[in-house]
Amino acid sequence: MHKSRISGFIIDCKTDDLDQAAEFWGAALGYDVTDEHEQPGSEPHYRKLDADRDNLHVELQRVEHESRMHLDLETDDLDAEVARLERLGAGRIGFVKRWWVMEAPTGQRFCVVLSKHPQFDQLAKKWSS
Amino acid sequence: MHKSRISGFIIDCKTDDLDQAAEFWGAALGYDVTDEHEQPGSEPHYRKLDADRDNLHVELQRVEHESRMHLDLETDDLDAEVARLERLGAGRIGFVKRWWVMEAPTGQRFCVVLSKHPQFDQLAKKWSS
Repeated sequence: MHKSRISGFIIDCKTDDLDQAAEFWGAALGYDVTDEHEQPGSEPHYRKLDADRDNLHVELQRVEHESRMHLDLETDDLDAEVARLERLGAGRIGFVKRWWVMEAPTGQRFCVVLSKHPQFDQLAKKWSS
Repeated sequence: MHKSRISGFIIDCKTDDLDQAAEFWGAALGYDVTDEHEQPGSEPHYRKLDADRDNLHVELQRVEHESRMHLDLETDDLDAEVARLERLGAGRIGFVKRWWVMEAPTGQRFCVVLSKHPQFDQLAKKWSS
């Protein structure tokens, strides 16, 4: 028995100026840009928006491919969730750092990450297999 | 003074079988597929998932371009919100049926629609201009 939920979405930006991109998206969506990725040693290719009030994890990622958006699913059991999604028809693209990149039968890529939301247990959907 | 919020996202699918696509995404995300677009006279190019428990509007759209995802913003004042987003750097692509298609400075398209969520007033962000 494991659980999962949409944790939020990643705004993939092909840009040389991720701060400017974060400024636009933060203002457009009404979310503050956090300083989570501005610390020494942290990821220079990410900026996090504070979407806690909507129970969403919203992050910008600097990418080399064309700009797009993708969903993140969070789970308490990465292997079980990836296996469940494979049975539904999704494919594994690869394991990156701490998450699985998958592809839907309709072609969109999305990621499966370990759960981080403090109310994950209450918010997530329970799967019997 | 007007308001806006992320209403949710649209899963744009290049597919001949939107029902099969809705079945995958509904099961993957843990949302039921509603019958909102299966009534006579309704839109054959859309399927709605029931994401009410997450305060999200999630819909599949059959498209001719490559599959992707896009955000919807909802507002109580379409003109004011589109003008606000333009000042932030977004561009107008066109008015379709009842909504504006816009493009972020980082290239992603998104839509601005009239608010539908029953708790819109409480959930939305207030803008002074």
